[in-house]
Amino acid sequence: MKKLKRSARLVEMTQFLLHRPHTLISLTTFAERYNAAKSSISEDLVIIKEVFEEEGMGDLLTLAGAAGGVKFIPRMPKSISLPIIEELSRKLEDPDRILPGGYLYMTDLLGQPALMNEVGKMFAAAFADAQIDVVMTVETKGIPLAYATAAQLNLPVVLVRRDHQVTEGSAVSINYVSGSNKSIHTMTLARRALKEKSRVLIIDDFMKAGGTVQGMIDLLHEFEAVVAGVGVLVESGELESNERLLNDYYSLAKLTHIDFKTKQISVEPGNYFGEEA
Amino acid sequence: MKKLKRSARLVEMTQFLLHRPHTLISLTTFAERYNAAKSSISEDLVIIKEVFEEEGMGDLLTLAGAAGGVKFIPRMPKSISLPIIEELSRKLEDPDRILPGGYLYMTDLLGQPALMNEVGKMFAAAFADAQIDVVMTVETKGIPLAYATAAQLNLPVVLVRRDHQVTEGSAVSINYVSGSNKSIHTMTLARRALKEKSRVLIIDDFMKAGGTVQGMIDLLHEFEAVVAGVGVLVESGELESNERLLNDYYSLAKLTHIDFKTKQISVEPGNYFGEEA
Repeated sequence: MKKLKRSARLVEMTQFLLHRPHTLISLTTFAERYNAAKSSISEDLVIIKEVFEEEGMGDLLTLAGAAGGVKFIPRMPKSISLPIIEELSRKLEDPDRILPGGYLYMTDLLGQPALMNEVGKMFAAAFADAQIDVVMTVETKGIPLAYATAAQLNLPVVLVRRDHQVTEGSAVSINYVSGSNKSIHTMTLARRALKEKSRVLIIDDFMKAGGTVQGMIDLLHEFEAVVAGVGVLVESGELESNERLLNDYYSLAKLTHIDFKTKQISVEPGNYFGEEA
Repeated sequence: MKKLKRSARLVEMTQFLLHRPHTLISLTTFAERYNAAKSSISEDLVIIKEVFEEEGMGDLLTLAGAAGGVKFIPRMPKSISLPIIEELSRKLEDPDRILPGGYLYMTDLLGQPALMNEVGKMFAAAFADAQIDVVMTVETKGIPLAYATAAQLNLPVVLVRRDHQVTEGSAVSINYVSGSNKSIHTMTLARRALKEKSRVLIIDDFMKAGGTVQGMIDLLHEFEAVVAGVGVLVESGELESNERLLNDYYSLAKLTHIDFKTKQISVEPGNYFGEEA
C-alpha cells in the first residue's frame, strides 16, 4: 500500500480492525501495510482505541511483547442494546403477528440483516470471554443470528440439520422430544463438522421449553463437545418453571403473554440486555 | 455525541458509513452527530472517499442539493476478489471433499462467516446498480450468502422453505423438477413475505442444471415479482449447454471436472470475478 497520511491511515486502520474482530494483529503488520514507523502506528491506535471505547463499539486490547499487537473485541453497552431490544419488543407486539396454533410471525424481523447483525453483536459481546470454539444452530431460522454472532467472534458456524443430507457425508443423528408439545423429532450433524472437545455456543431464534436446545446439547455429547453458552433471541415466558428443560441461557426478549381472543401480545426484555457501561 | 477532533471524527465516521451501505446520509446528520460545521464534515468525507476508493473498499457517492448527502456503495475490484476466488477454488479441489453420488462437501467453507462476508460483498458489488428490492434464497446452505449479500446492499432477505411451516402463516407452494436428476420437489413462500412487483436477487451456494433457481423464478411469478439477478457461489460445469435451464447468472467458481476413481477435482473461476479497476 502506498504511504498514507495519518488521517487516511486512521480511516484504513478503522476498516481493517472492524473487519477482523477477535484477531491479533501485530504492530509489524500495520507498519508494513502502511509503510510507517511503529511509533506512528501506536499513536494511531491510541486514537482509534479512544473512539471505539467512548462510542461503545468495543475494546482495543493491546498485548505487549514479541508476540504482541492489538485485538478488537466488539462490545455493546446497555445504552445501545436496550433501545434496540425495546424497539424489537414493540414490533413483536403487533397483533397481526399472531398465527394459528399460538405461533408468532417473526420472519420479517429475522429477514433484516442489519437487525441480525446488531443482535449478533450483542451475543458476541455477551460471550466474548467464554472461550468459544464454534457457534452452532439448528436450521433454519436461527442461521442468520448464528452467522452474525460468529462473524463478530471470528469463529466458524456449525449447522445442525433436521434430515441427513447427501451433501454432508456421514453424520450422527439423535432423536429428541420437543418440550412444549412432546412430539419426537430428529436432528443430525455431519461427522466432520465438529472436532472433539470443542466449546460450543448455541444460538437460536426462539425457545419455548428448550427441547430443541436440549437436543443440540445431547448431540454435542456424541461429539464429546461441551456447551459453553446458549443465546436465544426470544423466549416464551408462558411456562411453569418446572416445564423448562434449561435454565442457563441468555434471552434478549421474553414473550410474556399472548391472548388469541383479544389479539394482545406482551413482550419485555429478556434476561440479558447488554453490558453495564 | 461530544465534540471530537478531526482524527477521532474520521474513525467514527468510517465505522458509521461502513455499517450503513446503500443508505443516504445527509451532511446535517453528520454535522449534528459530531457537533461540527458542515464544511468540516465535507473535508472529512473527501479524505474518507479517497481512502475507500484507493483501497477498493467502495465508492462514496455525493448527492448535491437539499435532499443531498453521501452514500457508501461497497465495491470489490478484481484485484481483491480474484485472489479470494482462486484460494476458494484450490480449497474446493481437496480430494477429501468427494462424497458418494458425485456431491462435493462444501459445508466447512460455507460455515466461515468471514469468507461468506467477502463473497457477499462480491455479489453486492456485482448487483449494486440492478435496483434490487429484496434478496431471496431457498433453505438451507445459501442462507449465509444471501444475508451477507443483503447486508451490503441494505436489503431484506426472503427465505423460500422446502415445507410449509406453521410459523410462516398462509403460503404459496409450487412443485419444481430438479434439472439434474428429474426428481420433483416442493418449495413454499409465505404470502406476506414478498410484495407484488418486487425486483428480486436470487442467491444460492451451488447450481447444477439450475432447476432450483428456475423453481424460485416460477414461485416469483405467483407473487408478480421479477428476477433482477441470479448469483451462485459454485456452478457445475459438467453439463451440455442444452441441459442448462438458465443462462443469465453470475457464478464465482466453476466445478469443471470430478473424477471419482482418481479423486481429482478441477475448479476454476466462474463467469464473474469482480469489477475491472
